[in-house]
Amino acid sequence: GEASGPSVKTTVPGPKSRQMIADLDKIQFAGSVFYFTDYKNSLGNYVVDADGNSILDVFSQISSLPLGYNHPDMHKVVQDPDNQIAFINRPALGIFPAQGWPEKLTNSLLSVAPKGHTQVNTMACGSCSNENAFKAAFMWYRNKQRGGASISDEENSSCLVNRAPGSTPFTIMSFKGSFHGQTLGCLTTTHSRSIFKLDFPALDWPIASFPRYKYPLEDHVKENEAEDRRCLAEVEEQFEIYNKAGKFVAGVVVEPIQAEGGDVHASPEFFQQLQRIIKKNGAALILDEVQTGGGATGKYWCHEHFNLPDPADFVTFSKKMLTGGFYSLPEFRPQQGLKIFNTWMGDPSKVLLLEKVVQVVKRDNLLKLVELSGKKLMDGLKDLSNRFPQHMKNNVRGIGTFCAFDLTSPQKRDEAFFRLQQHGVQSGPCGEQTIRLRPFLVFQPKHADIFLDVLEKVLKEI
Amino acid sequence: GEASGPSVKTTVPGPKSRQMIADLDKIQFAGSVFYFTDYKNSLGNYVVDADGNSILDVFSQISSLPLGYNHPDMHKVVQDPDNQIAFINRPALGIFPAQGWPEKLTNSLLSVAPKGHTQVNTMACGSCSNENAFKAAFMWYRNKQRGGASISDEENSSCLVNRAPGSTPFTIMSFKGSFHGQTLGCLTTTHSRSIFKLDFPALDWPIASFPRYKYPLEDHVKENEAEDRRCLAEVEEQFEIYNKAGKFVAGVVVEPIQAEGGDVHASPEFFQQLQRIIKKNGAALILDEVQTGGGATGKYWCHEHFNLPDPADFVTFSKKMLTGGFYSLPEFRPQQGLKIFNTWMGDPSKVLLLEKVVQVVKRDNLLKLVELSGKKLMDGLKDLSNRFPQHMKNNVRGIGTFCAFDLTSPQKRDEAFFRLQQHGVQSGPCGEQTIRLRPFLVFQPKHADIFLDVLEKVLKEI
Ligand code: FES
Repeated sequence: GEASGPSVKTTVPGPKSRQMIADLDKIQFAGSVFYFTDYKNSLGNYVVDADGNSILDVFSQISSLPLGYNHPDMHKVVQDPDNQIAFINRPALGIFPAQGWPEKLTNSLLSVAPKGHTQVNTMACGSCSNENAFKAAFMWYRNKQRGGASISDEENSSCLVNRAPGSTPFTIMSFKGSFHGQTLGCLTTTHSRSIFKLDFPALDWPIASFPRYKYPLEDHVKENEAEDRRCLAEVEEQFEIYNKAGKFVAGVVVEPIQAEGGDVHASPEFFQQLQRIIKKNGAALILDEVQTGGGATGKYWCHEHFNLPDPADFVTFSKKMLTGGFYSLPEFRPQQGLKIFNTWMGDPSKVLLLEKVVQVVKRDNLLKLVELSGKKLMDGLKDLSNRFPQHMKNNVRGIGTFCAFDLTSPQKRDEAFFRLQQHGVQSGPCGEQTIRLRPFLVFQPKHADIFLDVLEKVLKEI
Repeated sequence: GEASGPSVKTTVPGPKSRQMIADLDKIQFAGSVFYFTDYKNSLGNYVVDADGNSILDVFSQISSLPLGYNHPDMHKVVQDPDNQIAFINRPALGIFPAQGWPEKLTNSLLSVAPKGHTQVNTMACGSCSNENAFKAAFMWYRNKQRGGASISDEENSSCLVNRAPGSTPFTIMSFKGSFHGQTLGCLTTTHSRSIFKLDFPALDWPIASFPRYKYPLEDHVKENEAEDRRCLAEVEEQFEIYNKAGKFVAGVVVEPIQAEGGDVHASPEFFQQLQRIIKKNGAALILDEVQTGGGATGKYWCHEHFNLPDPADFVTFSKKMLTGGFYSLPEFRPQQGLKIFNTWMGDPSKVLLLEKVVQVVKRDNLLKLVELSGKKLMDGLKDLSNRFPQHMKNNVRGIGTFCAFDLTSPQKRDEAFFRLQQHGVQSGPCGEQTIRLRPFLVFQPKHADIFLDVLEKVLKEI
């Protein structure tokens, strides 16, 4: 069974991990590795590292593994000989899908689709999911511009050499502090940290401010409403500037919670207003739920907490969904083949795993568990922030178990992160001085207690 | 055992596939689907479709499945309980790799690395492989420019909003007719067909001509040498124009054989000269072996046929290698974490499969088989092109089983492609009027005979 608590015998990383990091570094730059992992002996919420340390994992492989390590139902999927066929015969899915594929999509992705979404395309990671949602928005925007006119020869020939009119001057608006991936198109819309962007070329696309609230929220209602208005005015302004310059804004991409950027939350009202402004400007709302999607907020999609007046135009996903891809409303459906396309177009074996994840989430009532464990986490974090104001800022924030808190300085964050690790808790740093929690969907209130105990110990030490 | 020949009972696609295409089309645009596939009953070189037709597959899932359907050694990999751990616990590989990971890389990717390549990074598809090779070239170029100076605050802050000096004006040169993927960075370097590019924005990056030879080669030596010189002069010219404008060319990306563009071959001398020009201009040579790599040319890497004076700076791969990624020379190794990065950084379960593929290729002498079967294919195709000059152009070309031929018109290509399918042969269209062959590495001379017989039948019919 699962460990009853963390058990750490060496420093983390220990000597075995350090040797393996040195070995890997001969093959590739290995500076981002925390430690090597013994996946065979990892179970549930506990990861075991190469030195035999058993660590409570509240980071879940950057929020990507939904049900914890070696979940018995996941083992069943890969043990089934019929499923094994999908694991070893990966198709060019856009051309030769397996019989039964529409049913698989219906039982997995469509069974948890956001409201109004009947269309879904699979991709293989968050970046190609966003890049292809951008492309679908560009096609839709251009088709509106054409107004039914047919495609000219000049369009077809000019696009081959990256020239107008075939290549468009269209843009995607993004927000300061955002993260949408690290391919060059996505990277143009990413603004969370310079390490991701330095030295690389970027497109000239509009950028607006994302709200930065004062906490506690209840004491700063007026200021935070003004902050919403300031940011929304920037969105309007960017639309005006770029549309006037002929660099038409075809879409706005936004995270429901800016995760890499430091778990920055904005109000439902902000998103409601944002949707209205986008519609007014004839652009598409692209919600990037790569990190927020998949259940960690207590709903499958974080934006379901926002009561948007209309469904989002695109919702992109990856990570906990195991496959990348995007949902879209019918009007954004590509009308030509090969444009939203690549060799693999995702991976059916991942969708088999997802189908089971969706069943388990339902069977075991895991979204309810997320709500319970999330409440426990939030209450405990707020209590600690009150008791240790010299270390923790008063801005604990979260929905479900998608929680975060700030230390009072970047140095203190780094120290708290390191000490949590040494005491057997794997958390995730993000932003300037934030620690984010991204536990598995099987994270229980008892795990929250263990985490809070260790954090309290760390706060007493520093 | 494997089928002894094609067996077709319905039109292809048959009624069951057509029903499934209609079902899928409710969920996503399904216009690129050829037919639905029964992967359980497919074996070796034969794919079975949803209507029970058994089809000789010389397209191999757009050249991506190396050993044919349901290869017994692939089944063994996924049946092994120790391996199943990797299939269900996908890590954030750049942070928490599994113990033993360096050995896995050594036994798989590094065991077949191109000459001089000791460094390899895994990615998840051809597009992120190319995008990240571009990024590594940009970092390397910028570091040379900096000449050891440290990174300024202005660089760090300006890149966050896509501005100079942190965001660079650097470019990657590409060739007319090329295909390097469909994310926006890759797409800027793709020029094979307008369908891929129309309506999307592109960066202003240099483009040069790729040689278009007259066939038969032996009768046009002088003209083709002049064609090489013309294209190389364009490369030099583009370097001059872009470098002078401050849009420094950090790398040149090129396929050893332009595949999507119609299997366009250039001479070893062209690539040797190209490498010299790139070096002279202080840029990096990025060989995109996504389609050409993995053994189909009789060597693991097509450019090993070119006798380049020096190793290529980058070699990118995906498809038959089952994992994406790129090899690079040590000097192009990224020196900071998180820049060549994403959540998954590839997929260890694919590397387990690749490790076995590499063993099987060696054990069963498959590169030798490719050479034998390729010779049989080429001889047969040349013979047919002599006997059916009214249908086939005299430009049969190929290395190993990586073969192609042109029909005398686009319409005839479409008809030949369609009729091949109706007679139970799945080939691949590319370029304007080309049919390409991308058989599995287990394609034997007897399969070449069957293919040639069917092609002859088709040429007699049209
Ligand atoms: S870009 Fe998504 S898998 Fe390669």
